[in-house]
Amino acid sequence: MKNTLSLPAVPGTVGAIMSRQPLMLPPLMRAREALARLRQVGVPRDFMRNCYVVDEDGRLLGVLTLHELVMAPDHRRLEQIMSAPGPVLAPGDDQERAVALMDGADSVELPVVDGGGRLVGAVTADDAMDVQREEATEDMQRMAAMLPSEQPYLQTRVWDLYKSRVVWLLLLMVSAAFTGAIITRYESALAAQVALTAFIPMLMDTGGNCGSQSSVTVIRGLSLGEIRYGDWFRVAWKEIRVGVLCGLTLAAVSLLRLVLLSRTEFMVALVVSLTLVVTVLVSKLLGCFLPILASRVRLDPAVMASPLITTIADAVSLVVYFRIAAALLQI
Amino acid sequence: MKNTLSLPAVPGTVGAIMSRQPLMLPPLMRAREALARLRQVGVPRDFMRNCYVVDEDGRLLGVLTLHELVMAPDHRRLEQIMSAPGPVLAPGDDQERAVALMDGADSVELPVVDGGGRLVGAVTADDAMDVQREEATEDMQRMAAMLPSEQPYLQTRVWDLYKSRVVWLLLLMVSAAFTGAIITRYESALAAQVALTAFIPMLMDTGGNCGSQSSVTVIRGLSLGEIRYGDWFRVAWKEIRVGVLCGLTLAAVSLLRLVLLSRTEFMVALVVSLTLVVTVLVSKLLGCFLPILASRVRLDPAVMASPLITTIADAVSLVVYFRIAAALLQI
Repeated sequence: MKNTLSLPAVPGTVGAIMSRQPLMLPPLMRAREALARLRQVGVPRDFMRNCYVVDEDGRLLGVLTLHELVMAPDHRRLEQIMSAPGPVLAPGDDQERAVALMDGADSVELPVVDGGGRLVGAVTADDAMDVQREEATEDMQRMAAMLPSEQPYLQTRVWDLYKSRVVWLLLLMVSAAFTGAIITRYESALAAQVALTAFIPMLMDTGGNCGSQSSVTVIRGLSLGEIRYGDWFRVAWKEIRVGVLCGLTLAAVSLLRLVLLSRTEFMVALVVSLTLVVTVLVSKLLGCFLPILASRVRLDPAVMASPLITTIADAVSLVVYFRIAAALLQI
Repeated sequence: MKNTLSLPAVPGTVGAIMSRQPLMLPPLMRAREALARLRQVGVPRDFMRNCYVVDEDGRLLGVLTLHELVMAPDHRRLEQIMSAPGPVLAPGDDQERAVALMDGADSVELPVVDGGGRLVGAVTADDAMDVQREEATEDMQRMAAMLPSEQPYLQTRVWDLYKSRVVWLLLLMVSAAFTGAIITRYESALAAQVALTAFIPMLMDTGGNCGSQSSVTVIRGLSLGEIRYGDWFRVAWKEIRVGVLCGLTLAAVSLLRLVLLSRTEFMVALVVSLTLVVTVLVSKLLGCFLPILASRVRLDPAVMASPLITTIADAVSLVVYFRIAAALLQI
């Protein structure tokens, strides 16, 4: 039995988190001998739960839990009591795959085999829980326009927090110049109808909120494997229907509120309400398409979250707003 | 040994996720007998890893892993080889506590005991992984202004998606009326300096982005137990310093860009830059205080995320913007 993996493990891969001394036993050994062997060599790591049956070259043949070993009749050979290996990992796999596979296989320990089928390690549940927690944190950080950091907040230096945050803030600030340019272009229209300005923040915030709802839903779905690239049409069709429903509700409430409570001019209220419908729909579609596209080109979908979508949705909704206003208010 | 828990389990509690038939053994039993007993009764559940030593009333005395049992000398009594129970859960505990405790204790299975110290179940790693994944998803949904749902996206009906999303959209849209009112109040100032309008989206987006960076960081820190209520001063002091650094950087870049590239009037560019510094600082402070306050009054901090903070930060930054403009531009 060979177990000489000396490759340096790449951070973020299965190789970096796996336990490197799985319990390996030969197929012709009997249950009683296996237990005796275990008592002799000891357990390499407390969390390890499975024994692995390997051939003389170290190739994985089967798996049996310690429970199964204890329960087996003394003289039964391991090859008679072991189960087929089921899903296996490779040392180069993304560590997220370990979590997804463990979830899918409803298992708490997975063997890791190299290209030749040789057992080189095992990923246990405590490792997988750490990965799952870190990945969720990283996704949240990316969604909120930060560069991911693994350090706990209170231990992170101010300078490192600054660096992880300022990059996206700068990028998004500069790209918001587009929105400014759009407003400048319609400056004369705004000067004629200053009342229109008052609704800009509400329209932009609503677009931003709709965009984050969709993008966060899709990003999380992609990361849990509930949504795949091939589902893009089903996702889009769902978002369109939800968007129409949300848009119409917001438009109706806004129209009633503006006309009845704020005594806004009816035509201005109508412009605002129509813009709301378009903004909600556009934001929801951007929110679902950008993360799916990102996953297609192997970018992290979480980067396509709310802040980026807000910036694009802002520009689109402003153009729509001014176009509708120009058409209906003759300005 | 009694094991007659028949309480209905409250969803979201440890009682709802625990396995109800832990392996229970008496303290005076010898290792050899224990193994024989195991082979006789079988293992109730594949993922279970520990054996629990209990007294005649079912009270938990100690824990030993199956590994430890296998390794123990045949005639050793269980009370001699067991370890102290370590951290235990109660059936009424929030299921998040199981994950936090498992992480803190570096363990993959935790005993659950009732008020009388009697063992009533055990939470295993596969249960904890499910909880951890669901809780992260719920936090993300709340952060993105949605009511949490446990259903996978593609299986969720359009109507349910609509309901989970429209509530917060309506609330936030109506509260954005404040921002509109502020703009209306400064309408004459805006009419005198229409150029100011062009920067409103950029200022608002930057405030929103800064707010989500801080709030998501703090919400995640609270949920992982890295930040507690008592840390509010350390968090605020850190956010102030990061906020000043980010604000100054953004202000400097914005000033240079506006004066050199867009040939904006210097005084207008100065108003924008000064507002940026205040907006960034205020958003970062809101972003850290609101979630900490929410956790103090036992609300879910995730509800205090970006959308709500954006709405408040918008209003604050607009007032600051118009005040500074009024002072520096004499409008």
